Amino acid sequence: MVFENPVIKEILEKYRRIWAIYHASSVLGWDMEVNMPSEGIGERSVAQGELSMLSQKFLLEPEFVELVNKADGIEGLNEYESGVVRVLKREIKIQSSFPPEFVKELSETRSRATAVWKEAREKDDYDKFAPWLDKIMDLAKRAADYLGYDKYPYDALLDLFEEGLTTEDVERMFEKIEKDVKPLLDRILEEGEVPKEHPLEKVKYEREKMEKVNIRILELFGYPLGKRARLDVSPHPFTTEFGLKDVRITTRYEGFDFRRTILSTVHEFGHALYELQQDERFMFSPILGGVSLGVHESQSRFWENIIGRSKEFAELIYPVIKENVPEVAKYTPEDLYWYFNIVRPDFIRVEADMVTYNFHILLRFKLEKIMVNEGIKAKELPELWNEEMEKLLGIRPKNYGEGILQDIHWAHGTIGYFPTYSIGTLLSAQIGEYMKRDIPDFQEKVRNAEFSPIKEWLREKVHKYGSIYPPKELLRRSFGEEVEPEYFVRYLKSKYL
Amino acid sequence: MVFENPVIKEILEKYRRIWAIYHASSVLGWDMEVNMPSEGIGERSVAQGELSMLSQKFLLEPEFVELVNKADGIEGLNEYESGVVRVLKREIKIQSSFPPEFVKELSETRSRATAVWKEAREKDDYDKFAPWLDKIMDLAKRAADYLGYDKYPYDALLDLFEEGLTTEDVERMFEKIEKDVKPLLDRILEEGEVPKEHPLEKVKYEREKMEKVNIRILELFGYPLGKRARLDVSPHPFTTEFGLKDVRITTRYEGFDFRRTILSTVHEFGHALYELQQDERFMFSPILGGVSLGVHESQSRFWENIIGRSKEFAELIYPVIKENVPEVAKYTPEDLYWYFNIVRPDFIRVEADMVTYNFHILLRFKLEKIMVNEGIKAKELPELWNEEMEKLLGIRPKNYGEGILQDIHWAHGTIGYFPTYSIGTLLSAQIGEYMKRDIPDFQEKVRNAEFSPIKEWLREKVHKYGSIYPPKELLRRSFGEEVEPEYFVRYLKSKYL
Repeated sequence: MVFENPVIKEILEKYRRIWAIYHASSVLGWDMEVNMPSEGIGERSVAQGELSMLSQKFLLEPEFVELVNKADGIEGLNEYESGVVRVLKREIKIQSSFPPEFVKELSETRSRATAVWKEAREKDDYDKFAPWLDKIMDLAKRAADYLGYDKYPYDALLDLFEEGLTTEDVERMFEKIEKDVKPLLDRILEEGEVPKEHPLEKVKYEREKMEKVNIRILELFGYPLGKRARLDVSPHPFTTEFGLKDVRITTRYEGFDFRRTILSTVHEFGHALYELQQDERFMFSPILGGVSLGVHESQSRFWENIIGRSKEFAELIYPVIKENVPEVAKYTPEDLYWYFNIVRPDFIRVEADMVTYNFHILLRFKLEKIMVNEGIKAKELPELWNEEMEKLLGIRPKNYGEGILQDIHWAHGTIGYFPTYSIGTLLSAQIGEYMKRDIPDFQEKVRNAEFSPIKEWLREKVHKYGSIYPPKELLRRSFGEEVEPEYFVRYLKSKYL
Repeated sequence: MVFENPVIKEILEKYRRIWAIYHASSVLGWDMEVNMPSEGIGERSVAQGELSMLSQKFLLEPEFVELVNKADGIEGLNEYESGVVRVLKREIKIQSSFPPEFVKELSETRSRATAVWKEAREKDDYDKFAPWLDKIMDLAKRAADYLGYDKYPYDALLDLFEEGLTTEDVERMFEKIEKDVKPLLDRILEEGEVPKEHPLEKVKYEREKMEKVNIRILELFGYPLGKRARLDVSPHPFTTEFGLKDVRITTRYEGFDFRRTILSTVHEFGHALYELQQDERFMFSPILGGVSLGVHESQSRFWENIIGRSKEFAELIYPVIKENVPEVAKYTPEDLYWYFNIVRPDFIRVEADMVTYNFHILLRFKLEKIMVNEGIKAKELPELWNEEMEKLLGIRPKNYGEGILQDIHWAHGTIGYFPTYSIGTLLSAQIGEYMKRDIPDFQEKVRNAEFSPIKEWLREKVHKYGSIYPPKELLRRSFGEEVEPEYFVRYLKSKYL
């Protein structure tokens, strides 16, 4: 038993109904993306709103809060019990920061801003969206004020998605990226030895065949399809977990450029594995599940970049792709490898390669930061976006869809979220290097589909801790250091030079 | 606006969170049948248990109950407002009847009895299940005591599923069935003109092709697939609604005997239509949705029996079946019609035809009644089952799987549920006859896929009332009489003689 203290036990007993609401809300969210008939949205939104009010209500019930505070004062709790207190105190703090009217205003503004954003993007009419972006940013600043911060309001927003992350952390991280990766990108583009495009991008495939490829890859990984997991389809692939025993990923099928569907599947598998390898004893407790978005993204990026874009993986999956996409027979596993590793500056973040990806995030970070910390207004943004894009990647959007209107995140009101994508990307290379110290031939193992030692290592170093420790502490305990961009730079150099 | 009284408005505002929990619980239930990976069951059950405790808690909150009682005393509520009070008072009465320990005991006994039943059925070992059936029946009697009743404990259980239904109602209904349908069945079997079996039963089909047939039929019916509705697959077809704009049916594919999948789809469409044609103004209120299991079943049976097993329907769908099951080209639409209307005594209720179906229900009703009202014990049942089966259908089960172990209902603790199947069946013929008075050529319209007037009529007579009136009152208001088996007998005679 990991939970022995009677106060903790009482907390967990009361927490169960909150857990149940989270469970239900996750199922409703998954269903909305994967199954829901279009007109179901109105009733579903009302249900989700009511459920989130309920979970907040229960979390903030004085009796429950008192119990958590009481537990916080107890000496000698074990690390699991302390983890429970830590996570609940943080949740209570966040949920109690916002007055109900603010939560309502935020929720309504998000819904309306998202609708406006969709229309604005279709018509490429930024002016429509700009006032809504100002509203969203104003709400973000107010949220930061409610949450409190030491140095910058943006710190409070970053912390919501990645506990303990500060504006200065992110600045340090991107300084290194700009300093080291920018020259690397310029050199790659100049030398022209890394392909900028590949004929395999144009090859068409049948959806049913590609489903077989994805399922085969997941089987090789040991993904427990049908037992504890599913693979479904949605326009924007995602992972969701309803607990320990029901974890679901989605992928997308566009009918061409098959690395998109394969790498999406592999990426989401990484997220899923983090959830599937949690400690069974944490079930129904707040410490079950990945600790932060950045650490979660490190897992998905590890599988996508370190495993999925490796030569050994290309060799492993070449036969099954060839079998299902006959045109691939004209190419070698080496071709497949380079197709997965094209480097080409592109306007669209979600299509970006490993070298350019972080610059997309850097751009968004810079803009979010000046909007939140310095009050820059939405009308100035497109020009700033385009200038920054040109400076970082040497290309200039011809329309808003290629530029500032491409992401849904701002309309959704998620400000301070983007940097976690870069944290995950950097951390994945870092984890790759640590793994090599313990399993020097882990990439050889990929070629032979020996994924068990790789998964075991990830479990021991990351997964089994659930949310016991905050992300920075988890990294220090398991690896002796926090996010360090140097590993990623080394990884890119060894790959591309 | 249908809801104008301020007290009613306040009730509905407070009801919204209960509605949201029901919505969530329905989505979780649907997902469990259609999607859930097998090991997800443990966490899902816990979540469902917590949600049902929550909805009960909110329904019985003194403030809410007082408000409902207050509304009950108001003069001059309109029929919609009175409907809200009626439904909530009934729900409150039911939910407050059972002490929490009893609910827990019932829920645990159900889970364990279901597990034992599954094993007992696999091993054809009734003795294993018998003590659990006694426990279930004991709980049913205690439930009846908690609920209260005038004459028989079984009345209280019937009322749970079909408001106002009594043991005597059901006895009267079956007396007529036994008296009139039994001789009809004997005559059909004796004369031998109605087929007892058909070569189309053995024809195999491809699942993808049959999916096309089902989708085509649903399109002909005007089922709003993708907009407000879905069709999925589950071993036991069912319908569920998450509100007005998201209604889902399932069907089954065994790969042969295609009338099973087609009639399942048509049957579930009937349930779905009842929900889809509700009054939009009832959204989020307790009067949205079908009023009782019997009336619901009358809608599904109307589409299955009156439409789906008609000559005109066979003519309508013959081409699309032929296109997708080439072997059907050897047969005529008339063959198809008779294949859909075979009469053959069978051990298994869910495979039964229209003539024999009610005898399966009668048998179960007789046994439930004597167990609940007279305390007959489980060990005596198999013999009683087999005797009754022989008396009613002239066949005697060779094992328990063909007999008393075939249904999951008793293990689930649903006692008093079966009679609603017969009510629906009888009522469907009744509705067919009423419809003919208003739309004399409605069956001609089926041939031409003119379903709109049929759907409109059902909306006007049944659907649009939601749960405003109790089932018996709804029938009296719309049709001037309650369930009357005579219509069904006439229908069978005109079809088979």
